Parts: sequence; C-alpha cells; structure tokens
Amino acid sequence: MEWRYSQPVTIIFGSNKLNSLHEILNEYGLKNGLLVCDPFFEKNGLSQRVVELSKGLIKDVFFDITPNPTVENVDSCADIIRKNNIEFLIALGGGSSLDCAKASASICKTNDSIREYIGTGKVFNNDSLPIIAIPTTSGTGSEVTCVSVLTDHKNNIKAPVVHKNFYPKIAIIDPVLTITVPPYITASTGFDVLAHALEGFWSKNHQPICDALAIHAAKLVFENLYDAYVDGSNLAAREKLSEASVIAGLAFSIPKTAGSHACSYPLTSIYKIPHGEACAFTLDLFTRINTKVDDRLSYFANQLGYDSAYEMADRILELKKMMNMKITLKDAGIKLDDLEELSKLCMHPNMLNNPIEMNPSSIKNMFLSLNY
Amino acid sequence: MEWRYSQPVTIIFGSNKLNSLHEILNEYGLKNGLLVCDPFFEKNGLSQRVVELSKGLIKDVFFDITPNPTVENVDSCADIIRKNNIEFLIALGGGSSLDCAKASASICKTNDSIREYIGTGKVFNNDSLPIIAIPTTSGTGSEVTCVSVLTDHKNNIKAPVVHKNFYPKIAIIDPVLTITVPPYITASTGFDVLAHALEGFWSKNHQPICDALAIHAAKLVFENLYDAYVDGSNLAAREKLSEASVIAGLAFSIPKTAGSHACSYPLTSIYKIPHGEACAFTLDLFTRINTKVDDRLSYFANQLGYDSAYEMADRILELKKMMNMKITLKDAGIKLDDLEELSKLCMHPNMLNNPIEMNPSSIKNMFLSLNY
Ligand SMILES: NC(=O)c1ccc[n+]([C@@H]2O[C@H](COP(=O)([O-])OP(=O)(O)OC[C@H]3O[C@@H](n4cnc5c(N)ncnc54)[C@H](O)[C@@H]3O)[C@@H](O)[C@H]2O)c1
Ligand SMILES: NC(=O)c1ccc[n+]([C@@H]2O[C@H](COP(=O)([O-])OP(=O)(O)OC[C@H]3O[C@@H](n4cnc5c(N)ncnc54)[C@H](O)[C@@H]3O)[C@@H](O)[C@H]2O)c1
Ligand SMILES: [Zn+2]
Ligand SMILES: [Zn+2]
Repeated sequence: MEWRYSQPVTIIFGSNKLNSLHEILNEYGLKNGLLVCDPFFEKNGLSQRVVELSKGLIKDVFFDITPNPTVENVDSCADIIRKNNIEFLIALGGGSSLDCAKASASICKTNDSIREYIGTGKVFNNDSLPIIAIPTTSGTGSEVTCVSVLTDHKNNIKAPVVHKNFYPKIAIIDPVLTITVPPYITASTGFDVLAHALEGFWSKNHQPICDALAIHAAKLVFENLYDAYVDGSNLAAREKLSEASVIAGLAFSIPKTAGSHACSYPLTSIYKIPHGEACAFTLDLFTRINTKVDDRLSYFANQLGYDSAYEMADRILELKKMMNMKITLKDAGIKLDDLEELSKLCMHPNMLNNPIEMNPSSIKNMFLSLNY
Repeated sequence: MEWRYSQPVTIIFGSNKLNSLHEILNEYGLKNGLLVCDPFFEKNGLSQRVVELSKGLIKDVFFDITPNPTVENVDSCADIIRKNNIEFLIALGGGSSLDCAKASASICKTNDSIREYIGTGKVFNNDSLPIIAIPTTSGTGSEVTCVSVLTDHKNNIKAPVVHKNFYPKIAIIDPVLTITVPPYITASTGFDVLAHALEGFWSKNHQPICDALAIHAAKLVFENLYDAYVDGSNLAAREKLSEASVIAGLAFSIPKTAGSHACSYPLTSIYKIPHGEACAFTLDLFTRINTKVDDRLSYFANQLGYDSAYEMADRILELKKMMNMKITLKDAGIKLDDLEELSKLCMHPNMLNNPIEMNPSSIKNMFLSLNY
C-alpha cells in the first residue's frame, strides 16, 4: 500500500480559546486583518467582540456571505482586501464563511474574478494571504482542508475548488461558539461530520492515518449529536462534536469524500437541501452498499460497538428520524420522473472514490428504495 | 480540554518508495546532499545504491555513527557539512542515524559543538538544513518527531534534545529496508513502537488526535511483531510494522512518553540494554499501574480486542518471553543493592507525564516485582 500524508494547519482547540486571539495573532506576527464573518454574528454581537479581542489587529469586517457562498461573495471580499491593504484574514462562521475567505485570499493579489478558476483548470498563483479559521458550526472541517466549495449561479454550478493555498495557517476551534447553532443546523452539520468520517474511510483513496481519525470522529458523532440537538447549551456534547468535526476534517482531507457527497451536490442545488442533510440523505444507503466490498467497514462498525455495518446503518437512519431529517423521496420533494436526470447528476467526480462502482442506473435503484 | 496539534513532516509511505528518491528530491528542489548513514549499510551496499538513486544530488556520505549517537558523532558530521557546503541531509538508518543527522543539521551553520546544547537550555538558531529521513528500523519514529536523543560520555548523560528544527522535511518510509533487521533488533525496536503508542496515550498530555493514532499503531504491533521476528522476510508484517512505527511516532510526538521511557534511560546507560528492550522492561508493569487512574486504558485495550488492560499487559509479557526479551532483574543484571540508586535515576522528566504519580519508592517496589 502506498500513501502520503501532510497536514500543514496548526490546530488550537479549547473552550473559550477565542479569548486568546490577540496572543495567537501576535505569536504569528499577524496584523492588518480582515474579519470575514457570517452575517448572523453581526446581529448577535460576536463580530464586534472578535474585533475587540484582536486589540487593533483587525482593521475591517466583511459580512456579505450567503450559505453556499457565491462567486459574487468571493469577488467582493477580494475587493475589500485589495482596497484596504489587508495582510491576513480571520474567517469566522460555518463552512460558507470559511470557504469564501479561503477563495478570496487566493485571488486578492491578482485582479481576477474567482469565476475564472471554477471548473476551468486555471491554476492559482501561490501568493495568498494567511487565514485564521474559526469555525462556528461542527460540520464542514473546512478549517483543516484545502477545499473551497463555491457556487456560480450564472453558470449553474456548485463545485469544490482545491488548492494548497486554501489550507488555513491556524484553526482555532472554540466549542463555545457552536452553542448558538439551532437544532436543525446542529443535526444537518453533524451528519456532514459523520459523512466526512465514513466517506474518508471507505474512499478508494483511504490511508491509515485518516482511517484511525475517521473511527475516532464517527464514534463521537454517534455518542453526542443527539444530545447537542436536544439541548444546544450542552457544552460537553458541543465540545465532543467540535472535536469530531475537526478530526473528521483531517480524516477526509486526503482521501476525499465519495458517494454521499457526490449525491449531495444536486440535492442541494436542485432540491435546496442544505449540505449536511443532503449528505445524510444517502449515508445509510451507502453504508449498506459499501460494506459489501470487503471487511473494512464492518471493522469500523465493530470499533464503534456495532455488530455490523448494517446495524450501524440502522442507527444512522434512526438518528435521522429522531432529528427530523428528510428520509423519503417525498420528504425531499423528488418526483419519480426526476430520478433519471438526478441519478446522472450524482455522477460527480467524488463518485469515482466510492469503493463500489456506481452508475446512473444503480444510483436510481438506490433512490427508488426511498419511494415510500 | 485544551490541545494543540501541528505536524510539519510530509510522510511518503510505500514498499520500494526509495526508488523514487530522485523524483522526490527534485520535487523539493534539493541538491548538494550529504547521506548520513548507518555504517551497516556501507557493508551491505545500500548506501552506494542510495547515492546512485540520487543521480548526482548526493555529494558525500557520512558513516561515523554509533548506536546511541554521541556528541562526537554529531560534531564530526557537522564538520563535514560545513566543509562540503552541503545543502540538505538524507538520514538513512535507525533512530541513531536519524538523531545524529537532526542534531548536525541544526549546528552546522554555527561553529558550536552540540555539547553546548545538551541540558544547558541554550537555544538553537532557526537556520538549519532540511532533512529527508529514511528509517531502516520500525522503532523510534524519529522521522516524524522533533527529538534527538544524544549521549555525552564525557558528562555521563544520555538525554533527549527537543527543537522544532529537528522535524525532518520529508519522511520516506520504505518497509523493504527493514527486511534485513535481525530478529533481536526487530523485537527490541518493535517494543519501542508499542511503548510510544501506549505512553503517548496514557501521558498526562494526551490529546485526541494522538489517542486515535496510538490505538491504530499498537494494534498493528500486537498483530505483526512476532511474525516479523520469526520471519524477517515477511514483507506483509514488515509493512504493518513500518506503518505502526511512523504512526506511533505521530502519537507520542506531542504528548511525549512517560514512565517506561523514563526508566529506559538508566537501563540503557548503566545496564547497556538497547533502547526498545529497555522500554519493554517496564511496559507491562506500567500498563497495570496506569490503568488504575481512569477507564481510558481499558478502552484502549477493548479497542484492541482485550477484555481489560490487565489482559493486554499479560499479552505484552507473553510477547516479551516469546521474543527472548529480558524479564527479571537477574536477566537485566540488576542487583537488589542497585535498586535504590536506579529508582532515583528513573525519575527522568518523562516520569512527570505518567498518569499515576511515581516516586523512587514506588519505582523500587515496581522493580522488586521482577525479583525472581
Ligand atoms: N471546504 C470544505 O472542506 C467543505 C466541506 C463540506 C462542506 N463545505 C461547504 O460548506 C458549506 C456549509 O457550511 P455549514 O454547514 O457550516 O453551514 P453555513 O456556513 O452555510 O451556515 C449555515 C447556517 O448556520 C448559521 N450559523 C453558523 N454558525 C452559527 C452559530 N454558531 N450560531 C447560529 N447560527 C450559525 C449561518 O448563519 C447559516 O445561516 C456548504 O457550502 C458546503 O458545500 C465545505
Ligand atoms: N528521536 C526520537 O524521537 C527517538 C525516539 C526513541 C528512541 N530514540 C533513540 O534512537 C536510538 C535507537 O534507534 P533504533 O532503535 O532505531 O536503533 P539504532 O539506530 O541504534 O540501530 C540499532 C542497530 O540496528 C542496526 N540496523 C538498523 N537498521 C538496520 C537494517 N535495516 N538492517 C540491519 N541492521 C540494521 C544498526 O546498524 C544498529 O546496529 C536510541 O539512541 C534511542 O534513544 C530516538
Ligand atoms: Zn461535507
Ligand atoms: Zn522510544
């Protein structure tokens, strides 16, 4: 077996670690920063607090970010960076804010629009700004990956863009920041974590360091997600989910995701299902399908205390029901007539990482099992 | 819980990966290298092969390294570097060769002797040469740590020196290179791997990423060490041990080791027991002691398929017997009269990481259980 591993992000984890922001910025000699911030935190005052905690090291704040960040979000963020001679970014928010910051930091030293890089093969120059990523959801793991998922409405694409520039310099994981995440988003982003762990593990590009981390992360999600969903202020559960999220980020960062993420892209763009819930939609199904390839997934299930991958899949389905995720085609608003087209769109490049080879017809059959 | 993680070494793993040396050196723009090489490989011709594989990128070879490398080894290596305008090092061998290269690379841009840095608190300047580490034992994990263990006979110390300079730039792990390791060294270095995994896990500074990696690595040692001991040419077992070794290196690199490593230093310097066997000498004992602190170690044992940490300790002892490691005080040449002094010397700083607090008297009692 051949594999490579490298992980350039320094991870700083701990409840209330945000309070050490000034020290951390100083430790790395960072100044003249832009805070790229989820607009939710303008309302609840956290952005103001972060600016204060930086003790003058943050010059300006950018809030213009939508969930599933767009080309326009990235381009206007890059504009602000250029105009204000910004030297580093702090990305505070869910995956959407982090992905917007990562992309902006990579184009701001050019006059390019990010559109020129989405699906074109155009290569970023290496001269990007350092990013401090501070996630506020336990979800994407974007704080440790070199991926930015961007939406170009004009060309009707949502696609991951990958470049080593996109690795943040530092990820500050402060579980306290996730306390305000409402139940539905807790569930959806939590399933994203579980999908990263499972798919990183069963990806054709799996490798042992990521395998071990995937097992650790998945276990924490099974043990803590429902508790955090029921009581968002349960800090013990939030801490474990934050730990799961960043470690699952490491677990899929190299192997990449597979079937469930491939299917999630059209489910988000056409049926408007948020990312995590869209991944969850097929996660139990792919667990059942992918355990047929060898005994790796049953080992995974055993390490988590399940007798088999099938039992683990049952538990995923049960958790989805307990947290009101969409289960059936009807729930998701998918008509039988849509399946032909949808199944084709699920053949996203990530599907090639799936350990069992899928094609539009086997994907359609998989979806048909949800026709009740 | 608070923790940090960073891991700056790029790991490249695979049987026969050594054959890609030239490509890898080119990828990183490295030239004018010195091969710092275990003298064993002068005899068996591997050093010559490495020079050829580098296609002119290695200028010279340094062989003057003893097990438990000395101040003199390091200083004369640094001399060669200075005289030949060397720009990078390839360290090929066991922990001794790697540690010698790491230390030489950090002093070669000064006129200092390494002696000035051992136990003095003197700080290295950051201007060190890049190192490509190619381990030939499955043991120390030195290829991914920022530690170099050096011996100063004049001042009668063997001590770990720690600095971020000591992280290699790249670790190339080629399990084929370990095929020639004789049975006794296979066993001894294999127990070193197991000690790194267990001690990284039970260290007071444990943290979740290293925990997950420790479980993965220990499992591989239990499953493969005896097979590689019995038949050194068993490449499947060698591959798993190489994987265990580098991953255990990651697992202890941040939490550091604890009781068994603390005890190993005097066992090596006074009783001349090689590093891995010296760690093994107390590893089952500390497993029994440390499981009393909480349920973490029984979780570890369960994940490996043992009912308890006690059952895991029994298995460690059994493996030690199966591979002819020293078990009793008598085996090790330790007299009852020595115990007072030995127990004091075991209070090495690593002992402070042990989850159960130890003192010379509890250490003496531990050793007394081996008086048969
Ligand atoms: N880069 C990667 O590696 C990667 C991986 C997976 C997904 N993604 C992408 O990330 C995006 C999804 O990110 P996400 O799931 O974190 O959601 P998000 O960033 O889109 O946020 C979802 C909602 O949660 C709110 N929110 C965030 N933090 C909050 C908090 N602490 N309290 C209250 N509300 C809060 C936001 O305001 C928003 O309304 C998608 O575009 C997805 O494709 C990226
Ligand atoms: N830097 C760290 O993080 C770290 C950690 C633990 C131990 N150490 C140190 O590393 C040293 C021990 O290293 P080690 O256990 O790898 O042993 P070693 O490097 O001292 O080598 C032991 C013997 O094995 C031989 N050998 C090595 N590779 C061989 C091969 N492929 N085929 C045949 N013979 C081979 C050597 O020639 C030598 O005689 C000690 O000084 C120990 O304190 C360092
Ligand atoms: Zn995702
Ligand atoms: Zn060791």
